[in-house]
Amino acid sequence: MTKNTKVNAAILIIGNEILSGRTQDTNTSTLAIWLNSIGVQVNEVRVIPDKEKIIVDNLNFLRKTNDYVFTTGGIGPTHDDITAESVSKAFGIEYEIHKEAFKILESYYKPGEFNKGRQKMVWMPKSAELILNPTSGAPGFSVENVFCLPGVPSILKSMLGGLKNKIVGGEPILSHTISLRTVESEIANSLSKVQNQNKDVEIGSYPFFHAGKLGVSIVLRSENKSKIDICSSQILEFIKQKNIEIVDR
Amino acid sequence: MTKNTKVNAAILIIGNEILSGRTQDTNTSTLAIWLNSIGVQVNEVRVIPDKEKIIVDNLNFLRKTNDYVFTTGGIGPTHDDITAESVSKAFGIEYEIHKEAFKILESYYKPGEFNKGRQKMVWMPKSAELILNPTSGAPGFSVENVFCLPGVPSILKSMLGGLKNKIVGGEPILSHTISLRTVESEIANSLSKVQNQNKDVEIGSYPFFHAGKLGVSIVLRSENKSKIDICSSQILEFIKQKNIEIVDR
Repeated sequence: MTKNTKVNAAILIIGNEILSGRTQDTNTSTLAIWLNSIGVQVNEVRVIPDKEKIIVDNLNFLRKTNDYVFTTGGIGPTHDDITAESVSKAFGIEYEIHKEAFKILESYYKPGEFNKGRQKMVWMPKSAELILNPTSGAPGFSVENVFCLPGVPSILKSMLGGLKNKIVGGEPILSHTISLRTVESEIANSLSKVQNQNKDVEIGSYPFFHAGKLGVSIVLRSENKSKIDICSSQILEFIKQKNIEIVDR
Repeated sequence: MTKNTKVNAAILIIGNEILSGRTQDTNTSTLAIWLNSIGVQVNEVRVIPDKEKIIVDNLNFLRKTNDYVFTTGGIGPTHDDITAESVSKAFGIEYEIHKEAFKILESYYKPGEFNKGRQKMVWMPKSAELILNPTSGAPGFSVENVFCLPGVPSILKSMLGGLKNKIVGGEPILSHTISLRTVESEIANSLSKVQNQNKDVEIGSYPFFHAGKLGVSIVLRSENKSKIDICSSQILEFIKQKNIEIVDR
């Protein structure tokens, strides 16, 4: 694999509740881990409010600069759920009742329960492809390279299985972690040399505090296992020389 | 307060570990709650990789479109900590040893321990103002309206107290939550009417699952308590009419 074949994505988190700090976003991590496993690297995440112009502008920028865009939030039945209408405007296509989605929700609810509030959830960009929702009925949807998912983490997770065949990734991004009983400044120079000799491997260094003890996790990421192995052996060499304890590898 | 007096901020999370899903960002929520309490509203959050050009471009956009920008991550001693150098480039000012920071860290460490790796942490944009770090010595810094904080959540939290006098906020943003035993589609239309009659109050609707039971939290946000109260009473009125159980208010 060369760099040109990398497949990338942006995540657009839509919701005032994340920006106010009331809700802790966990969908980024869920999506990123899943995307990495199918060979898609997340380039950028943006969190924006439930405002149409902001959604449209960000979507139109991100869908042109990334292979895929995943949005979360704003596809429920209330007044602040404006993602579907905003996606329609971003693409300049009609916002209308999606017949297949209508049928799905009509049979999901008991007779008489598919009220006007719930019917809002079947309004989508014309010809959107549905993303089925095994948890709570109301489907997500995709238009071209934009995939719209709900904000509730458990529902989002349950919908990823149905998405897999719609995303064409590159080689899965592999990761290897070496955790050490040291501090970053003890290894900074040696690690920098290894990074310079291994440009194709992304080397991250992350301090941690576990059970009252300081440590550093070195994370190696690449699509190429042998490159990770070479890099790892160079790191283990300087660790041995410095007599640093390995906590986990 | 009119809308013009609102003070806003963007958060720029710098770090491959968030984009890979390895680390769950919690700094957004910490910063947003703290900023709201001093009258600063978070407009946007971006998560970007440890790449200089991307940091520079995002910083230069966000610092011009927001009253304040807060960055997290990338100010440690290792090769992937490039925030300080990138901020220097974004502002076009020299990247050099900050004398005050040097003195702080020189006296923080035992004699002989202030090695080259650690000295990287005192390289900053020229004339940066320091943000003191009561946890682990190494200070953050600010240049004009950009405030650079570390990525480790416990250290970041400990530095907010020292920041307070540097940020001039507007009226604190107040929030009131009404939690109901219902589903969103039951209240969607009524809530929409209340939103239309109360344009200055941001009304959010968030489904939750607690202890196996479904519910909806309605969150009202405004700088003006009396506007929240009016909005709240209108909501309580339709809740009563619909005979919906209030879980918490």
